[in-house]
Amino acid sequence: MTIDAFVFDAYGTLFDVQSVSQITNQEFPEHGELITQVWRLKQLEYTWLRSMMGSYRSFWEITEESLNYTLNAIGVTAEKAVRDRIMDKYLHLDPHVDCLTALDALEGVPLAILSNGNQEILDALVSNSGLDAKLQSVISIDKAGIFKPHKDAYELVEAVLKVKPENTIFVSSNAFDACAAKNFGFRVAWIERVTPEALAEEISSAAVVGPTTMFKLLRMQMESFGMEPDYRLKSLNDLAGLIDRADKAAAPASLRA
Amino acid sequence: MTIDAFVFDAYGTLFDVQSVSQITNQEFPEHGELITQVWRLKQLEYTWLRSMMGSYRSFWEITEESLNYTLNAIGVTAEKAVRDRIMDKYLHLDPHVDCLTALDALEGVPLAILSNGNQEILDALVSNSGLDAKLQSVISIDKAGIFKPHKDAYELVEAVLKVKPENTIFVSSNAFDACAAKNFGFRVAWIERVTPEALAEEISSAAVVGPTTMFKLLRMQMESFGMEPDYRLKSLNDLAGLIDRADKAAAPASLRA
Repeated sequence: MTIDAFVFDAYGTLFDVQSVSQITNQEFPEHGELITQVWRLKQLEYTWLRSMMGSYRSFWEITEESLNYTLNAIGVTAEKAVRDRIMDKYLHLDPHVDCLTALDALEGVPLAILSNGNQEILDALVSNSGLDAKLQSVISIDKAGIFKPHKDAYELVEAVLKVKPENTIFVSSNAFDACAAKNFGFRVAWIERVTPEALAEEISSAAVVGPTTMFKLLRMQMESFGMEPDYRLKSLNDLAGLIDRADKAAAPASLRA
Repeated sequence: MTIDAFVFDAYGTLFDVQSVSQITNQEFPEHGELITQVWRLKQLEYTWLRSMMGSYRSFWEITEESLNYTLNAIGVTAEKAVRDRIMDKYLHLDPHVDCLTALDALEGVPLAILSNGNQEILDALVSNSGLDAKLQSVISIDKAGIFKPHKDAYELVEAVLKVKPENTIFVSSNAFDACAAKNFGFRVAWIERVTPEALAEEISSAAVVGPTTMFKLLRMQMESFGMEPDYRLKSLNDLAGLIDRADKAAAPASLRA
């Protein structure tokens, strides 16, 4: 069992999509939380719906469409300058707190991104966060013209990196992505950022389940597809442990711990 | 401009998916609303995700998978008998209050359903509600092996009914479905069950935006795809007015109102 590469999802896995709240709260103090959550929920919906309709648009355009939907549905108006400031955050999302240390700990193994983001905005985001020095490749699904979880998106990994899915650890905190990658043939590490216990506690202590909890409920728990990822990890920092396991498995039995 | 058929979406358009709250509230008094909303949100997500992954399952199986997801994510356990009672409601959903009168008013024009539901559960639902006497055809997308909004699903209408999309009024209250049907080539009536004004009022008067309002926000407003339906109607009862319009358009100009 060798590990030829780690391939990471970007939005939600390396980068914190919730960090848009900094700007949504600033522009719309009354509705920041609602905009943050509805926007992200619709953004992924739109990638799926446009893929199914055969009417691909870039992730940047979909991010704009879903922001427009969100503001319309909530009933707020925003001039172009406001929408531009909100959109700009997608080029400057905060890396998750475990992102940089985790990538450093994996040095020596090829590291790459496979993301829904179109090449231009992905490259900008990676560069703005300083991650470009740590990654061998930043692969956008826009070369396939269809979003995850379609197989054409996942096939880009082997095409670009020349690594077999079974020797690649695909890393995602998006459960649908982790399941689909497993179904495709990758070895998959799902980053479980919200445990069932923490979520149950959050639900039971709320008088009304609000938008952020609703987001965690809808998108941050393991899907029920019967496509279980190989590893459930609490943090990206736990990935380094998979290399130790792989080394031990490759070593003669007499040397294993 | 002739109207050769009206083709209806089933779940949410003719039948009230919110009527599952009767049984979810009964089985889980503390979490009924949350289960009702998360279940429906995940049910459609699963049709999209499984379609994109090329791993089709029947709508009945997807309805079970999404119910399992919902109960797990909320952190409640339910023995099989409880889950069976909840699932059974999908064979006995309440027709919307405008459903029967609207279909009666359209008598004389062929009426049909095109639905994500598999044939067996659709036939049961239609029969249990007494709608079978009013419909010429009940078309399930299971013959296409892929869910709406994929074109293979919409193509079944012409294949089965022998009517052209441009002479067919496709009726849906699901905005994604209305947009995709328009994009496909149907004339489309979107049933706008929640106006933007009512939703804005609901949001502004809530201390915390809860699950039912979140559902309306996510799934009951017009999508921002730039695929506008031909008609926005407040009720299925407004469909009869489209026949009058079509008659007038077909009549000599001197006879038009």
